[in-house]
Amino acid sequence: MFLFLILYICPKLINLLNLIIMDTNMEKPYVVGMDIGGTNTVFGIVDSRGNVLATDSIKTQSYATIEEYVDAVCSKLLPLIDSMGGVEKIKGMGVGAPNGNYYKGTIEFAPNLPWKGIIPLAALFSEKIGVPTALTNDANAAAIGEMTYGAARGMKDFIMITLGTGVGSGIVINGQLVYGHDGFAGELGHVIMRRENGRLCGCGRKGCLETYCSATGVARTAREFLVARSEPSLLRSIPAEEIVSKDVYDAAVKGDKLAQDIFEFTGRILGEALADFVAFSSPEAIVLFGGLAKSGDYIMKPIQNALDENVLPIFKGKTKLLLSELKDADAAVLGASALGWEAK
Amino acid sequence: MFLFLILYICPKLINLLNLIIMDTNMEKPYVVGMDIGGTNTVFGIVDSRGNVLATDSIKTQSYATIEEYVDAVCSKLLPLIDSMGGVEKIKGMGVGAPNGNYYKGTIEFAPNLPWKGIIPLAALFSEKIGVPTALTNDANAAAIGEMTYGAARGMKDFIMITLGTGVGSGIVINGQLVYGHDGFAGELGHVIMRRENGRLCGCGRKGCLETYCSATGVARTAREFLVARSEPSLLRSIPAEEIVSKDVYDAAVKGDKLAQDIFEFTGRILGEALADFVAFSSPEAIVLFGGLAKSGDYIMKPIQNALDENVLPIFKGKTKLLLSELKDADAAVLGASALGWEAK
Repeated sequence: MFLFLILYICPKLINLLNLIIMDTNMEKPYVVGMDIGGTNTVFGIVDSRGNVLATDSIKTQSYATIEEYVDAVCSKLLPLIDSMGGVEKIKGMGVGAPNGNYYKGTIEFAPNLPWKGIIPLAALFSEKIGVPTALTNDANAAAIGEMTYGAARGMKDFIMITLGTGVGSGIVINGQLVYGHDGFAGELGHVIMRRENGRLCGCGRKGCLETYCSATGVARTAREFLVARSEPSLLRSIPAEEIVSKDVYDAAVKGDKLAQDIFEFTGRILGEALADFVAFSSPEAIVLFGGLAKSGDYIMKPIQNALDENVLPIFKGKTKLLLSELKDADAAVLGASALGWEAK
Repeated sequence: MFLFLILYICPKLINLLNLIIMDTNMEKPYVVGMDIGGTNTVFGIVDSRGNVLATDSIKTQSYATIEEYVDAVCSKLLPLIDSMGGVEKIKGMGVGAPNGNYYKGTIEFAPNLPWKGIIPLAALFSEKIGVPTALTNDANAAAIGEMTYGAARGMKDFIMITLGTGVGSGIVINGQLVYGHDGFAGELGHVIMRRENGRLCGCGRKGCLETYCSATGVARTAREFLVARSEPSLLRSIPAEEIVSKDVYDAAVKGDKLAQDIFEFTGRILGEALADFVAFSSPEAIVLFGGLAKSGDYIMKPIQNALDENVLPIFKGKTKLLLSELKDADAAVLGASALGWEAK
């Protein structure tokens, strides 16, 4: 009879606990998402349906010490939080950062950031803002965003490639983000694409994918092509050191052959790399994210062609090449924010 | 009171069911493991503790049709099964095969096998022998063996590289084999290592890792080096077309500089490839398996050096380079057999 009582009471207790937990969630209906890019840091408040309710940003490179940086973020983020009802409405904070270690909440030796060594970023924000904070690679965060709200909805195996200042990646296998044994897996921007005479990379090595297929890689290709070739080009009207990938796109749209060739060159190298990635995890789709991916057929056609030509026959035509379905700013903030719900 | 009775009786029923299931396992105490290599097909009977109790083999290439091949395997396998008490003692059969599709139980377009197209191998054996049969990539099977009985015991993130007639791989992430969306993931022997003037591969493309770092790749390097260089070498006493990787090892052990350089060349390319693999999944260890891996420091030193020199700084010194701890023949059979326990 005692057993009966226990078995009868236990489910009631569990229900009660669930109600308490649900109540807590309703009392804390928002999370903070923050994306630390090489250029900009964007942060925002997100609700449980994935609506980005308020955002702001600062320049990442303007702060020599991590303390100054955290203070600068907080000076803009805390007013946002206050406008949503204060910190007691925030369930947690998720951060996407280069070289972010999911297991430890640290940024470790990020080549594109001004703060060197191991930075305990999650702990710093958790202390300053007073909410549990989790952290991962910025591209992993974007992949979570894409899986939850974007082009990879419902997929269990896909690779997200972010084409920004650098090239990042988030790999999802069996429905799980791949963090690796140390929390840093998925650095596909740093596979070597040119083993001889490869371009020097910010990581200290040569020939990394990132040196060719990032926005800065495209600008670098433009400068190389302008020196190596003598034909006229709209790009010649811009001082070489000031050319950015957007200039190349604008020239390509106006029919500039040299600019179109720059995208052809960039797309082919990316397609070759994607073919190798397919041999690794045979994803259902590769999702491209970032400004470069929006250069339309100028870049998508050479990527698709090089992928088709270089992929192992057994994988031919199987992996979809997709564009991110998330708005640029939102994707990173949304993805990072998803971590906030589970932060402890 | 009725509820009480149900709650009291249920655990008893579950116990009874468990006993019936255990009894079935005890009545079927063995599995069959089979490894289909480009050269040999090895099969054996394995018990639940991973003891390989009996094995036999046939030559893979001697049978033009898949029916002849299955008959040839069965003519040697069925007597083994009979010697263990008959087919009613066999729980299931697991097969490791090139281009093996875990989801469908098929071999699909395997470039190194004589049977073209899609071969429903699991179904053929299941019908012929009368036990449930599961199938995967031969290297995936080896990885399962290594995880269960070998150098990767207890690891959740590792990559197995098999250096045989070809180069295969089995990738374990979060404790799970990576099959990809189509069942074919983990073809790391076919990442492109030389994009210009790469060697022609059996897959129809050029510059694959396999063309350099398989046993046949080593023999190919030997022939290239003997033509390109004029110094004396023990290898010159062997007709060029007959050189195999074992000859190169034997010459290296005798102090032959050219033979040692062949291993240096092979090891460096493999180390470069491993550095890229680490960027993907950041494994705790990479386990090397196969004859080549047993060439000691001649090959292991250049692999380790090239890995250290080429790996992204964030991963430096983190990934262990290990040798398989399984006996050659046993590893493949053991790994494949592990699939047999779960075959349905």
